[in-house]
Amino acid sequence: MEGVVITDLKRISTPKGDVLHAMKCTDVGYCGFGEVYFSEIAHGERKGWKRHNRMTLNLVVVSGAIRFIIYDDREDSMTCGMFEEVTLSPEGRYARLTLSPGLWMAFEGVGEGRSLLMDIIPEPHDPNEADRKDVDEIEYRL
Amino acid sequence: MEGVVITDLKRISTPKGDVLHAMKCTDVGYCGFGEVYFSEIAHGERKGWKRHNRMTLNLVVVSGAIRFIIYDDREDSMTCGMFEEVTLSPEGRYARLTLSPGLWMAFEGVGEGRSLLMDIIPEPHDPNEADRKDVDEIEYRL
Repeated sequence: MEGVVITDLKRISTPKGDVLHAMKCTDVGYCGFGEVYFSEIAHGERKGWKRHNRMTLNLVVVSGAIRFIIYDDREDSMTCGMFEEVTLSPEGRYARLTLSPGLWMAFEGVGEGRSLLMDIIPEPHDPNEADRKDVDEIEYRL
Repeated sequence: MEGVVITDLKRISTPKGDVLHAMKCTDVGYCGFGEVYFSEIAHGERKGWKRHNRMTLNLVVVSGAIRFIIYDDREDSMTCGMFEEVTLSPEGRYARLTLSPGLWMAFEGVGEGRSLLMDIIPEPHDPNEADRKDVDEIEYRL
Protein backbone atom coordinates (compact mmCIF):
# COMPACT_ATOMS: atom_id res chain seq x y z
CA MET A 1 0.00 0.00 0.00
CA GLU A 2 1.18 3.54 -0.74
CA GLY A 3 2.69 4.98 2.44
CA VAL A 4 3.38 1.66 4.18
CA VAL A 5 6.95 0.41 4.61
CA ILE A 6 7.89 -2.76 6.50
CA THR A 7 11.58 -3.05 7.40
CA ASP A 8 12.89 -6.32 8.83
CA LEU A 9 15.00 -5.77 11.94
CA LYS A 10 18.01 -7.57 13.40
CA ARG A 11 17.79 -9.62 16.54
CA ILE A 12 21.24 -10.50 17.89
CA SER A 13 21.30 -13.65 20.03
CA THR A 14 23.29 -13.75 23.25
CA PRO A 15 23.05 -16.35 26.04
CA LYS A 16 21.99 -13.81 28.69
CA GLY A 17 19.32 -12.19 26.52
CA ASP A 18 19.12 -10.88 22.95
CA VAL A 19 19.74 -7.40 21.61
CA LEU A 20 16.97 -6.15 19.31
CA HIS A 21 17.46 -3.31 16.87
CA ALA A 22 14.57 -0.85 16.57
CA MET A 23 15.51 2.37 14.76
CA LYS A 24 18.52 4.46 13.79
CA CYS A 25 18.46 8.09 12.70
CA THR A 26 19.91 6.96 9.36
CA ASP A 27 17.11 4.42 8.65
CA VAL A 28 14.48 4.66 5.93
CA GLY A 29 11.32 6.09 7.48
CA TYR A 30 13.06 8.12 10.17
CA CYS A 31 11.76 11.68 10.11
CA GLY A 32 12.89 13.18 13.41
CA PHE A 33 12.35 12.40 17.07
CA GLY A 34 9.58 14.03 19.06
CA GLU A 35 8.54 11.24 21.40
CA VAL A 36 8.70 7.53 22.01
CA TYR A 37 5.93 5.77 23.94
CA PHE A 38 4.45 2.31 24.42
CA SER A 39 0.96 0.95 23.96
CA GLU A 40 -0.10 -2.28 25.64
CA ILE A 41 -2.80 -4.39 24.11
CA ALA A 42 -4.50 -7.32 25.83
CA HIS A 43 -5.13 -10.56 23.92
CA GLY A 44 -8.20 -10.27 21.70
CA GLU A 45 -8.61 -6.54 22.23
CA ARG A 46 -8.52 -4.03 19.40
CA LYS A 47 -7.52 -0.35 19.56
CA GLY A 48 -8.50 1.95 16.72
CA TRP A 49 -9.35 3.28 14.29
CA LYS A 50 -6.97 6.21 14.42
CA ARG A 51 -5.57 8.43 11.69
CA HIS A 52 -2.62 10.76 12.12
CA ASN A 53 -2.82 13.75 9.83
CA ARG A 54 0.69 15.19 10.16
CA MET A 55 2.91 12.55 11.73
CA THR A 56 4.64 9.47 10.34
CA LEU A 57 4.50 6.54 12.81
CA ASN A 58 7.34 4.07 13.31
CA LEU A 59 5.98 1.00 15.07
CA VAL A 60 7.86 -1.95 16.57
CA VAL A 61 6.24 -4.85 18.48
CA VAL A 62 8.68 -5.64 21.30
CA SER A 63 6.67 -8.21 23.25
CA GLY A 64 3.89 -10.62 22.29
CA ALA A 65 2.29 -10.32 18.85
CA ILE A 66 0.11 -7.63 17.26
CA ARG A 67 -1.97 -7.68 14.10
CA PHE A 68 -2.17 -4.32 12.33
CA ILE A 69 -4.95 -3.39 9.93
CA ILE A 70 -4.36 -0.37 7.70
CA TYR A 71 -7.01 1.33 5.60
CA ASP A 72 -6.38 3.86 2.87
CA ASP A 73 -9.22 6.30 2.05
CA ARG A 74 -7.00 9.06 0.62
CA GLU A 75 -8.64 10.13 -2.61
CA ASP A 76 -5.34 10.98 -4.32
CA SER A 77 -3.77 7.60 -3.46
CA MET A 78 -3.25 4.80 -5.97
CA THR A 79 -4.32 2.37 -3.24
CA CYS A 80 -7.47 4.27 -2.14
CA GLY A 81 -10.10 1.88 -0.78
CA MET A 82 -7.57 -0.86 0.04
CA PHE A 83 -6.90 -2.65 3.34
CA GLU A 84 -3.57 -4.14 4.36
CA GLU A 85 -2.87 -6.49 7.24
CA VAL A 86 0.39 -7.52 8.88
CA THR A 87 1.22 -9.37 12.10
CA LEU A 88 4.48 -8.50 13.87
CA SER A 89 6.21 -10.09 16.84
CA PRO A 90 9.76 -10.33 18.24
CA GLU A 91 9.32 -14.12 18.16
CA GLY A 92 7.92 -14.18 14.62
CA ARG A 93 8.37 -11.46 12.05
CA TYR A 94 10.45 -8.87 13.87
CA ALA A 95 10.14 -5.69 11.80
CA ARG A 96 9.39 -1.99 11.90
CA LEU A 97 6.17 -0.72 10.38
CA THR A 98 6.39 2.83 8.99
CA LEU A 99 3.03 4.47 8.33
CA SER A 100 2.61 7.72 6.45
CA PRO A 101 0.14 10.32 7.73
CA GLY A 102 -3.39 10.05 6.37
CA LEU A 103 -3.77 6.28 6.76
CA TRP A 104 -6.27 4.72 9.17
CA MET A 105 -4.87 2.07 11.50
CA ALA A 106 -6.24 -0.37 14.05
CA PHE A 107 -4.33 -3.03 15.97
CA GLU A 108 -5.25 -6.17 17.82
CA GLY A 109 -3.43 -8.17 20.50
CA VAL A 110 -2.88 -11.69 19.17
CA GLY A 111 -0.11 -12.76 21.56
CA GLU A 112 -0.79 -14.50 24.86
CA GLY A 113 -1.47 -11.99 27.63
CA ARG A 114 -0.16 -8.49 27.06
CA SER A 115 1.55 -7.41 23.85
CA LEU A 116 3.67 -4.29 23.73
CA LEU A 117 4.01 -1.79 20.90
CA MET A 118 6.66 0.93 20.65
CA ASP A 119 5.86 4.04 18.62
CA ILE A 120 8.37 6.71 17.59
CA ILE A 121 6.76 9.96 16.44
CA PRO A 122 8.47 13.05 14.99
CA GLU A 123 6.86 15.53 17.41
CA PRO A 124 5.51 15.24 20.95
CA HIS A 125 1.98 13.80 21.21
CA ASP A 126 -0.76 16.24 20.16
CA PRO A 127 -4.35 14.95 20.56
CA ASN A 128 -5.63 17.40 17.91
CA GLU A 129 -3.38 15.94 15.26
CA ALA A 130 -5.27 12.64 15.02
CA ASP A 131 -8.81 11.56 14.09
CA ARG A 132 -10.56 8.59 15.64
CA LYS A 133 -13.35 6.25 14.67
CA ASP A 134 -14.91 3.39 16.58
CA VAL A 135 -13.84 -0.15 15.67
CA ASP A 136 -17.10 -0.81 13.82
CA GLU A 137 -17.18 2.52 11.92
CA ILE A 138 -14.89 1.18 9.20
CA GLU A 139 -16.06 -2.14 7.86
CA TYR A 140 -12.98 -4.27 7.48
CA ARG A 141 -12.77 -6.48 4.42
CA LEU A 142 -9.42 -7.74 3.12
CA MET B 1 25.31 10.25 42.19
CA GLU B 2 26.72 12.94 39.87
CA GLY B 3 25.49 12.21 36.35
CA VAL B 4 22.53 10.01 37.31
CA VAL B 5 18.96 11.28 36.86
CA ILE B 6 15.85 9.19 37.56
CA THR B 7 12.63 10.61 36.11
CA ASP B 8 9.32 9.01 37.07
CA LEU B 9 7.13 8.32 34.04
CA LYS B 10 3.38 8.32 33.46
CA ARG B 11 1.45 5.14 32.88
CA ILE B 12 -2.07 5.85 31.61
CA SER B 13 -4.59 3.10 32.38
CA THR B 14 -7.06 1.96 29.75
CA PRO B 15 -9.21 -1.18 29.78
CA LYS B 16 -7.68 -2.60 26.57
CA GLY B 17 -4.08 -1.96 27.63
CA ASP B 18 -2.14 0.93 29.15
CA VAL B 19 -0.19 3.69 27.42
CA LEU B 20 3.29 4.17 28.87
CA HIS B 21 5.29 7.35 28.36
CA ALA B 22 9.01 6.90 27.69
CA MET B 23 10.70 10.06 26.38
CA LYS B 24 9.92 13.35 24.69
CA CYS B 25 12.41 15.60 22.89
CA THR B 26 11.62 18.29 25.47
CA ASP B 27 12.46 16.10 28.50
CA VAL B 28 15.37 16.54 30.88
CA GLY B 29 18.15 14.21 29.78
CA TYR B 30 17.25 14.21 26.08
CA CYS B 31 20.33 15.00 24.02
CA GLY B 32 19.39 13.95 20.49
CA PHE B 33 18.32 10.78 18.76
CA GLY B 34 20.78 8.45 17.10
CA GLU B 35 19.27 5.04 17.82
CA VAL B 36 16.80 3.18 19.96
CA TYR B 37 17.32 -0.52 20.70
CA PHE B 38 16.27 -3.17 23.20
CA SER B 39 18.25 -5.46 25.46
CA GLU B 40 16.69 -8.60 26.90
CA ILE B 41 17.95 -10.00 30.16
CA ALA B 42 17.03 -13.41 31.54
CA HIS B 43 16.15 -13.80 35.23
CA GLY B 44 19.29 -13.93 37.39
CA GLU B 45 21.65 -12.98 34.55
CA ARG B 46 23.85 -9.92 34.66
CA LYS B 47 25.19 -7.91 31.70
CA GLY B 48 28.10 -5.54 32.24
CA TRP B 49 30.24 -3.79 33.18
CA LYS B 50 30.10 -1.27 30.36
CA ARG B 51 31.12 2.38 30.22
CA HIS B 52 30.12 4.78 27.45
CA ASN B 53 32.67 7.51 26.94
CA ARG B 54 30.75 9.93 24.74
CA MET B 55 27.07 9.02 24.90
CA THR B 56 24.37 9.72 27.46
CA LEU B 57 22.05 6.71 27.90
CA ASN B 58 18.31 6.98 28.48
CA LEU B 59 17.03 3.68 29.84
CA VAL B 60 13.45 2.51 30.37
CA VAL B 61 12.43 -0.97 31.58
CA VAL B 62 9.31 -1.84 29.58
CA SER B 63 8.77 -5.45 30.65
CA GLY B 64 9.75 -7.41 33.77
CA ALA B 65 12.14 -5.83 36.29
CA ILE B 66 15.81 -4.87 36.09
CA ARG B 67 18.27 -3.91 38.81
CA PHE B 68 20.91 -1.40 37.70
CA ILE B 69 24.25 -0.97 39.42
CA ILE B 70 26.20 2.18 38.61
CA TYR B 71 29.81 2.80 39.57
CA ASP B 72 31.60 6.14 39.44
CA ASP B 73 35.40 6.06 39.09
CA ARG B 74 35.76 9.51 37.49
CA GLU B 75 38.56 11.24 39.33
CA ASP B 76 37.03 14.70 38.93
CA SER B 77 33.61 13.62 40.25
CA MET B 78 32.29 14.50 43.70
CA THR B 79 30.91 10.96 43.90
CA CYS B 80 34.10 9.16 42.76
CA GLY B 81 34.31 5.66 44.28
CA MET B 82 30.56 5.44 44.92
CA PHE B 83 28.06 2.79 43.81
CA GLU B 84 24.36 3.40 43.21
CA GLU B 85 21.63 0.83 42.76
CA VAL B 86 18.09 1.16 41.45
CA THR B 87 15.44 -1.36 40.37
CA LEU B 88 12.97 -0.32 37.67
CA SER B 89 9.87 -2.04 36.32
CA PRO B 90 6.64 -1.03 34.55
CA GLU B 91 4.79 -2.84 37.37
CA GLY B 92 6.83 -1.21 40.15
CA ARG B 93 8.81 1.98 39.81
CA TYR B 94 8.22 3.03 36.21
CA ALA B 95 10.91 5.61 35.46
CA ARG B 96 13.61 6.65 33.03
CA LEU B 97 17.24 6.35 34.08
CA THR B 98 19.54 8.93 32.46
CA LEU B 99 23.24 8.10 32.72
CA SER B 100 26.01 10.53 31.81
CA PRO B 101 29.03 9.26 29.88
CA GLY B 102 31.95 8.03 31.96
CA LEU B 103 29.91 5.97 34.45
CA TRP B 104 30.20 2.17 34.65
CA MET B 105 26.92 0.27 34.56
CA ALA B 106 25.81 -3.33 34.98
CA PHE B 107 22.25 -4.65 35.01
CA GLU B 108 20.56 -7.79 36.24
CA GLY B 109 17.25 -9.42 35.34
CA VAL B 110 15.16 -9.64 38.51
CA GLY B 111 11.74 -10.13 36.89
CA GLU B 112 10.29 -13.55 36.12
CA GLY B 113 11.48 -14.82 32.74
CA ARG B 114 12.69 -12.21 30.29
CA SER B 115 12.96 -8.52 31.18
CA LEU B 116 13.21 -5.91 28.48
CA LEU B 117 15.22 -2.68 28.51
CA MET B 118 14.89 0.17 26.02
CA ASP B 119 17.89 2.41 25.43
CA ILE B 120 17.85 5.71 23.52
CA ILE B 121 21.30 6.93 22.49
CA PRO B 122 22.23 10.23 20.80
CA GLU B 123 24.20 8.64 17.94
CA PRO B 124 24.04 5.26 16.21
CA HIS B 125 25.80 2.42 18.05
CA ASP B 126 29.62 2.56 17.84
CA PRO B 127 31.46 -0.35 19.50
CA ASN B 128 34.63 1.75 19.90
CA GLU B 129 32.83 4.31 22.02
CA ALA B 130 32.40 2.01 25.03
CA ASP B 131 34.72 0.12 27.39
CA ARG B 132 33.87 -3.22 28.94
CA LYS B 133 34.90 -5.15 32.01
CA ASP B 134 33.86 -8.60 33.19
CA VAL B 135 31.22 -8.81 35.93
CA ASP B 136 33.86 -9.70 38.58
CA GLU B 137 36.38 -7.03 37.52
CA ILE B 138 34.66 -4.35 39.58
CA GLU B 139 33.98 -5.50 43.13
CA TYR B 140 30.51 -4.31 43.97
CA ARG B 141 29.92 -2.97 47.45
CA LEU B 142 27.03 -0.65 48.20
